[in-house]
Amino acid sequence: MALRFKPVDTAFYTLLATQASHLVNGASLVAELLDEGGDREDLSKRMRAAEHEADETTHEVVRRVNSTFVTPFDREDIYALSSSLDDVMDFMEEAVDLVVLYEVESLPGGVADQIEVLQRCAELTAEAMPRLQSMKDLEEYWIEINRLENAGDKSYRRLLAKLFSGQYDALEVLKLKDVLDALEHAIDAFEKVANIVEQIHVKES
Amino acid sequence: MALRFKPVDTAFYTLLATQASHLVNGASLVAELLDEGGDREDLSKRMRAAEHEADETTHEVVRRVNSTFVTPFDREDIYALSSSLDDVMDFMEEAVDLVVLYEVESLPGGVADQIEVLQRCAELTAEAMPRLQSMKDLEEYWIEINRLENAGDKSYRRLLAKLFSGQYDALEVLKLKDVLDALEHAIDAFEKVANIVEQIHVKES
Amino acid sequence: MALRFKPVDTAFYTLLATQASHLVNGASLVAELLDEGGDREDLSKRMRAAEHEADETTHEVVRRVNSTFVTPFDREDIYALSSSLDDVMDFMEEAVDLVVLYEVESLPGGVADQIEVLQRCAELTAEAMPRLQSMKDLEEYWIEINRLENAGDKSYRRLLAKLFSGQYDALEVLKLKDVLDALEHAIDAFEKVANIVEQIHVKES
Repeated sequence: MALRFKPVDTAFYTLLATQASHLVNGASLVAELLDEGGDREDLSKRMRAAEHEADETTHEVVRRVNSTFVTPFDREDIYALSSSLDDVMDFMEEAVDLVVLYEVESLPGGVADQIEVLQRCAELTAEAMPRLQSMKDLEEYWIEINRLENAGDKSYRRLLAKLFSGQYDALEVLKLKDVLDALEHAIDAFEKVANIVEQIHVKES
Repeated sequence: MALRFKPVDTAFYTLLATQASHLVNGASLVAELLDEGGDREDLSKRMRAAEHEADETTHEVVRRVNSTFVTPFDREDIYALSSSLDDVMDFMEEAVDLVVLYEVESLPGGVADQIEVLQRCAELTAEAMPRLQSMKDLEEYWIEINRLENAGDKSYRRLLAKLFSGQYDALEVLKLKDVLDALEHAIDAFEKVANIVEQIHVKES
Repeated sequence: MALRFKPVDTAFYTLLATQASHLVNGASLVAELLDEGGDREDLSKRMRAAEHEADETTHEVVRRVNSTFVTPFDREDIYALSSSLDDVMDFMEEAVDLVVLYEVESLPGGVADQIEVLQRCAELTAEAMPRLQSMKDLEEYWIEINRLENAGDKSYRRLLAKLFSGQYDALEVLKLKDVLDALEHAIDAFEKVANIVEQIHVKES
């Protein structure tokens, strides 16, 4: 809308892109859950380390929002975006943690579909974050994330039907449902990131 | 507060009213769950169609927010209102979908009270949306929604006590609780809509 | 940043501090759940009364936001802060209510840790609210709440592992998990309060 002559701190774009790249890493750790022979205690440790690293970047964003005079877009929006990216990591870590905590032996087959959606969301988000600087070619990103979230939702519901079909006992259903819910929430959090990007786009254009 | 000489796009009021009228339709579909002889596969299909129609209206709101220069109130608030109305529909659709997915034979008696609250919330919201234009007579609306949400919460808790009283096995409890939760979340989402209307009223008056 | 010559209504600070002091009271009622010989019906009544009192304060904040010309910080932020403080009380009331509703005989040992975190959060929040006026010494508050929320999360996950270890049947797991979840959500709501305070600080400084 307005011409911008303000000296804008562009480090925010780099930091948000870094946050998103942590999520690509996190999603590939989640995918290791499918590897049944894997050492899950070790996986859980690596996941926690990844989550701490991502936390560092989130705090760096907050610190910079606090100390920067002119931000590239509204402070509140940078804050919301960063904290939603952080939510994704928290849910991914929760999924891995619950598998170890509940001593889940094997996950139902369809979980692979949910995790594939999660990985694709992470990749698309990581690719989109640097485009915040130009505010160009973002629409295809949020449309695709919305499409993926719908696909993930369908996988999730198919998995629920399977869980309740009678082949699992109630305690096992409870355990598995918590894991599936964490994955579903991670995907929903990616959709929230996309919605915030859309809203920023609304304001800035 | 200020006199308004700005050429405001009033289509937003119509679109928000349309969104709310979709919810009246959705709530009456939910009420069909009480009809035990009904064809639930067919109900689920009609619910999905209603949800898609409502989605269309939501997207129309977003598109218009993107392309309109002067909105009748803050862009972010239109966006929040529209997305909360959309949430209600999603939860209603989830309730119907879970009944089919889990092959729930019959719902506990008290669910009728919860669904009655849901229908009343939908009607009141549909009546209130057109009043956003004048910003008049809205207080009674949000007070009544808050009262209904409290009533719904009480029905919900009575239902929970019934579920856990020992007459249902654990797997059945899990299934029924998910359905009740979806209905409860739909009612909560109506309360969120009312809260946003109250906040818009705060800003505009 | 800017000098303030505006006649600001300082009653908001008092009201927010009152809301937080209701939470100190609420948390000590929650702690009575640990007293196994206690009259829980009576506790539930006192909890409900505490929740109603807190509601009154919340409504007083909203009324004042409606009728005050110059608020000490953004109306929306006062509103968000007040409604998050209200959420904490709702979750605390839910925890107590569910114990009575589900006729839970005894809570797992580790719940004491979760409740201790809850009480500490309430005290810190009650101490911090009056400091909103000067906007000083708030950082230590939100850092400590974040640390406590992490500690609470760890207690919660240890409790989950215990619940699913095989010593409880599925129906008991369902009941206890709902109680633990309500406590966990109350702690999360304290973290949300702290996040809002941090955001207000970002805007005001």
